[in-house]
Amino acid sequence: MTVLITGFDPFGGESINPSWLTVHQLSGQRILGHEIVGACLPTAFDASLAQLAGLIEQHRPDLVIALGQAGGRSGISLERIAINIDDARIPDNYGAQPIDQPVIDGAPAAYFSSLPIKAMLKQLHAADLPAEVSNTAGTYVCNHVFYGLMHLCQFYPNMRAGFIHIPYVLEQAIAHPGAPSMALNDIVRALAIIVRCAIECETDIVFGSGTEC
Amino acid sequence: MTVLITGFDPFGGESINPSWLTVHQLSGQRILGHEIVGACLPTAFDASLAQLAGLIEQHRPDLVIALGQAGGRSGISLERIAINIDDARIPDNYGAQPIDQPVIDGAPAAYFSSLPIKAMLKQLHAADLPAEVSNTAGTYVCNHVFYGLMHLCQFYPNMRAGFIHIPYVLEQAIAHPGAPSMALNDIVRALAIIVRCAIECETDIVFGSGTEC
Amino acid sequence: MTVLITGFDPFGGESINPSWLTVHQLSGQRILGHEIVGACLPTAFDASLAQLAGLIEQHRPDLVIALGQAGGRSGISLERIAINIDDARIPDNYGAQPIDQPVIDGAPAAYFSSLPIKAMLKQLHAADLPAEVSNTAGTYVCNHVFYGLMHLCQFYPNMRAGFIHIPYVLEQAIAHPGAPSMALNDIVRALAIIVRCAIECETDIVFGSGTEC
Amino acid sequence: MTVLITGFDPFGGESINPSWLTVHQLSGQRILGHEIVGACLPTAFDASLAQLAGLIEQHRPDLVIALGQAGGRSGISLERIAINIDDARIPDNYGAQPIDQPVIDGAPAAYFSSLPIKAMLKQLHAADLPAEVSNTAGTYVCNHVFYGLMHLCQFYPNMRAGFIHIPYVLEQAIAHPGAPSMALNDIVRALAIIVRCAIECETDIVFGSGTEC
Repeated sequence: MTVLITGFDPFGGESINPSWLTVHQLSGQRILGHEIVGACLPTAFDASLAQLAGLIEQHRPDLVIALGQAGGRSGISLERIAINIDDARIPDNYGAQPIDQPVIDGAPAAYFSSLPIKAMLKQLHAADLPAEVSNTAGTYVCNHVFYGLMHLCQFYPNMRAGFIHIPYVLEQAIAHPGAPSMALNDIVRALAIIVRCAIECETDIVFGSGTEC
Repeated sequence: MTVLITGFDPFGGESINPSWLTVHQLSGQRILGHEIVGACLPTAFDASLAQLAGLIEQHRPDLVIALGQAGGRSGISLERIAINIDDARIPDNYGAQPIDQPVIDGAPAAYFSSLPIKAMLKQLHAADLPAEVSNTAGTYVCNHVFYGLMHLCQFYPNMRAGFIHIPYVLEQAIAHPGAPSMALNDIVRALAIIVRCAIECETDIVFGSGTEC
Repeated sequence: MTVLITGFDPFGGESINPSWLTVHQLSGQRILGHEIVGACLPTAFDASLAQLAGLIEQHRPDLVIALGQAGGRSGISLERIAINIDDARIPDNYGAQPIDQPVIDGAPAAYFSSLPIKAMLKQLHAADLPAEVSNTAGTYVCNHVFYGLMHLCQFYPNMRAGFIHIPYVLEQAIAHPGAPSMALNDIVRALAIIVRCAIECETDIVFGSGTEC
Repeated sequence: MTVLITGFDPFGGESINPSWLTVHQLSGQRILGHEIVGACLPTAFDASLAQLAGLIEQHRPDLVIALGQAGGRSGISLERIAINIDDARIPDNYGAQPIDQPVIDGAPAAYFSSLPIKAMLKQLHAADLPAEVSNTAGTYVCNHVFYGLMHLCQFYPNMRAGFIHIPYVLEQAIAHPGAPSMALNDIVRALAIIVRCAIECETDIVFGSGTEC
């Protein structure tokens, strides 16, 4: 089995993006015997999805987990659903700022994650890692990639996929007084648990409880 | 034109629900010459939607705006999208607590609001009323009603509909130290603007900017 | 009895300061037969306190209640204590930015408010107005004025005094998405209750419960 | 030089108190050659201070740093000032719940910390640890111990002392969805930096900048 995990490059004035730092640490490793391929996507609407599609075509992963930074959140956010809208508060890294545009014209309003998010939640908590199911990945590049990724799944029927938001890491929180954060090593630990859980679990049936796998 | 507006009865230990208090104040009035019909739905998964379907069949409204309380939010929340999932943290008023169940089995993952939410945002701000577009109505009875309402729209092709979350009112905030709130009269003022805007605007094209109408 | 109430001029990029808007509405009125004198202080360390001292010498008030804006708080903040430190995160309106300087060199570390803050809390809640006792007025011009005011009390033994922080008003919250706010008329209503309570209550004994008066 | 560091036992329904877990890890070690003595105080108004006074009399420390848990804060809180008031929202571990009582009758309204809090802030940030100066330690047992500790300093003229609040640790945050947290090992790392900084710095002159030492 091949597992593709992706992070993003820095945006919004940050000098680092913990999603890529996290992915980078697991990239090239093996989890439960399976190869982990890591990649860094640009925080840009068009390029991010183009690049992700290329990576999927190249690696034919069985599992894709995309990560993004969600400054202000306090724990690991297991995203439940991607929505078909781009509505950017700030321009992306290439200067694009779509307002109320569909991610993919004519496609469904939303896709649910096909990751076992409730089983992941249980395992993260068992490992003393703060985590929550989130019902919105926003309307910026993260949701754009998440939606595009789920849309691609129809062309790769055996591929499961989803999106995880992570908080600021400690060093970022210093520039954002009062903002919650997590240490990078704890986020890396969380991602390893998430990947292992996704490998072990049967594909989550979207409307099943997801707590057993 | 008939406009149906709905609120909920109290839940979660509260003795009032500001959504119904708000709706109650505009019920029976006319806005721009159109009749406003108000109704109070039970905060219960099954009964709420059954009752709403009955009200729509009875009144054949051109416009339906459902309101709900979102304790902890600081302004008027214009909900963008309803998702096909019930995932209740606490039991509803009739004791039901669905976990990861679809609102409507086999129906799409989500529906976008057909209200002109960006035009509403602009008009609320022009009236000095704090408001934001929200990308999640949660997974409790509010989202359940919102999703069911949007699903019903396919059977009433000329009906436009959507959902608005409102904060605690002042008297509720006293029991929730630190929680934001708005005065009831300001929320009523906001709802009147929202209704007027929805009447005046052409149906928002889902992926248009929604800022003009 | 003469009651002096003060607000501040706008600072930190705001075009209004709700503390002065509130004070302005009660200025010149009579409450329980007593004259209310309102004044607007500059948001500047040196000038604010100099001006306040002049106003006290001129009006010889029996009661002084200073108001200030605390953006981000959700209700009326009844400040308990003023501390002898200036530590400014941003320059004041005249460009001064003291870091870790005493308000008054050689004076005590802190002064407690001599207002009946617990009785006020009770009365505000009875009027459905969100309010809390606060244990810090910060280290900017608000605390500076509060501390200087309490220090002046020793020269006017019959004068009671204190400080109240108020949230953003509705129109300010629009520029601060997610920030709590209160309507100006509700803040004015709160100040009238606060003044009336202070007039009616015996001087609060600092370490008494303050809930009865 | 002897350094006394203290934590508290669990309170408010928690099964652990990270302040004691942190102190426990450094207790018995040497930092810059100085002996670190750790102790766990009861979260109880009377007993905590009595026990602290006994520990100081026994160990004659040159430096005392008391730690407490502040659930909801996101980083290390370097407390600036202790105030002479007990005002408990919940009973302490022995059932006492003082309301608006002085910590020490007839004593000053407040004491400033004599730790170099601004130098500590600088060093914590340099080590990528989120930290802030706080202007209130609340009015519960933490402030009670902090105030009593600073009051004791007058009887031990060479003793420097202060109080540090720490956030929930990861495992606590799981039971408080949305609450910020820090990993225990990062808090331990922070305390080691704080102790080292306090040892190295000359006594902070209260109204000096505290940024140099």
